Amino acid sequence: MSVGDRSLVLGAGGFIGTNLCLKLRGLGVAVTGFGRGAPPAALVGIDWISGRLDEGRPERLVAGHAHVFDLIGAGLPNSSNDNPAQIVADAVPAKVRLLEACRSEGVRRYVFASSGGTVYGITGTAPVSEDAPTEPISAYGIGKLVVEKYLALYRHLYGLEARALRIANAYGPHQDARHGQGLVAALLRRLLAGEPVEIWGDGRIVRDYIHIDDVVAAMLACLDHDGPGRVFNVGSGIGRSVGEVLADAARITGRTPRLVRREARGADVPVNILDSSRLARETGWAPLVEWEAGLAATAEWIVRSG
Amino acid sequence: MSVGDRSLVLGAGGFIGTNLCLKLRGLGVAVTGFGRGAPPAALVGIDWISGRLDEGRPERLVAGHAHVFDLIGAGLPNSSNDNPAQIVADAVPAKVRLLEACRSEGVRRYVFASSGGTVYGITGTAPVSEDAPTEPISAYGIGKLVVEKYLALYRHLYGLEARALRIANAYGPHQDARHGQGLVAALLRRLLAGEPVEIWGDGRIVRDYIHIDDVVAAMLACLDHDGPGRVFNVGSGIGRSVGEVLADAARITGRTPRLVRREARGADVPVNILDSSRLARETGWAPLVEWEAGLAATAEWIVRSG
Repeated sequence: MSVGDRSLVLGAGGFIGTNLCLKLRGLGVAVTGFGRGAPPAALVGIDWISGRLDEGRPERLVAGHAHVFDLIGAGLPNSSNDNPAQIVADAVPAKVRLLEACRSEGVRRYVFASSGGTVYGITGTAPVSEDAPTEPISAYGIGKLVVEKYLALYRHLYGLEARALRIANAYGPHQDARHGQGLVAALLRRLLAGEPVEIWGDGRIVRDYIHIDDVVAAMLACLDHDGPGRVFNVGSGIGRSVGEVLADAARITGRTPRLVRREARGADVPVNILDSSRLARETGWAPLVEWEAGLAATAEWIVRSG
Repeated sequence: MSVGDRSLVLGAGGFIGTNLCLKLRGLGVAVTGFGRGAPPAALVGIDWISGRLDEGRPERLVAGHAHVFDLIGAGLPNSSNDNPAQIVADAVPAKVRLLEACRSEGVRRYVFASSGGTVYGITGTAPVSEDAPTEPISAYGIGKLVVEKYLALYRHLYGLEARALRIANAYGPHQDARHGQGLVAALLRRLLAGEPVEIWGDGRIVRDYIHIDDVVAAMLACLDHDGPGRVFNVGSGIGRSVGEVLADAARITGRTPRLVRREARGADVPVNILDSSRLARETGWAPLVEWEAGLAATAEWIVRSG
């Protein structure tokens, strides 16, 4: 990565996007953020374009950028199953037009935020590697997987250099619990506010939590990567149940949780732990933020930011 | 399969569909054919509905059928890359609406004709098994793979019983060489007509040729299948180069080919041979039609049908 190369961050107003933009700016890299609304407060002053990917010409958006980070999601895993055709009908074609633009505008590297928690479906093994079968149990996961397949197609046909990161459950500063994403953010906010905590199912669902700083580091590692892999897991490799996360969050905040139990959701796989050794082997990346320290820092950030 | 169960064959006017309808009729099974135009001459007298899957209400089409055979293609592998977003934008949502209809109408089994020649992409091994990585090099192959993923999703969410067959290069009677599909049909027709034969690339492309009777037998085997597999290869397990097929076709027809060489096509993988042992193990299916006998019978059928 050279400081002279301009990066475009799509979905820059979201959790990962905000953290990535802050990191790039901190490194002195020129950044354009693209999001649906105005930039979040943390990104005031950044070059910003408001819009939707399925409107306008993606060539104009992409032009002049060496690197494109695609963090645009499409709803949430659970709600995606209410209208399962929509994600392929709407979101995927917009992504393919974006890839066309990236190739015509000479984008040097495209980094795609795929989903380690949904593309595999119900895994037979834990931790799961990138070569495991992929049978998503949500249309959201299918949508992510289809984009990965188009990345491989565009590489084969046109040499477009893309990397897909199958990211585990990221947590950390700037995660917005109001949109239903992020157990850690939701738990910490509710505990700190003295509000009751909602738990779906029996609390035994196991996920792989990875601090956002480690996710951002993985994205940056993709820019210089020249190994054989094109799809990489990004996780801690450690599984934690909802009950364990709750206990840790309660201990760190010093609060006693009041629980509200909700019915289990259909798109939740029981266990998801990622084996990220391919990324480690090919780029030297490793998760550096220790769980309890990351949790405590996130709680502090929530208190500080109100 | 009970004779009282009515089968719906989607894409019944095509090569596989025509053969499947004839077989079902021969077995005394009630069949509805669905296709874009009028039924082909071979299927005159069959119950027939003309239409397009993306028009009208699929519930009305599906109602009253115990089994649905989905043989509807979406163009050809090579031309699919000219407009790579189209297949997911148009064909896949229509398929998902069809799956919705199958579940609401209580369809007992859905058999999907996937594509053994395109879903794997450039395989590292031959023969390739169902567990191999899937990296299609055509949007056509991505489209087939996405439907497979939706079948798995509908099974998980709603218990819809579907089987996907990744079919190798089928050949035999009723294959229409005019639409660019089917090397065997094209070679035999041109040789028998004394016309020059077009060869793409250097003639070293290797494919797995399977007689249509064996493909139809695999589809019928899916109706009673209750093993663990949901995706099955259907091939002979034997690879033959274009040059070998040409030599065999020339010998069987007694004609000397005049060759016209064309440039290799981007969506053609170099080698594709399928390992169909999963289907054999779980259903007792085996390819029964020997290559030279199948080739000779196909040539005779072409001569007889004009």
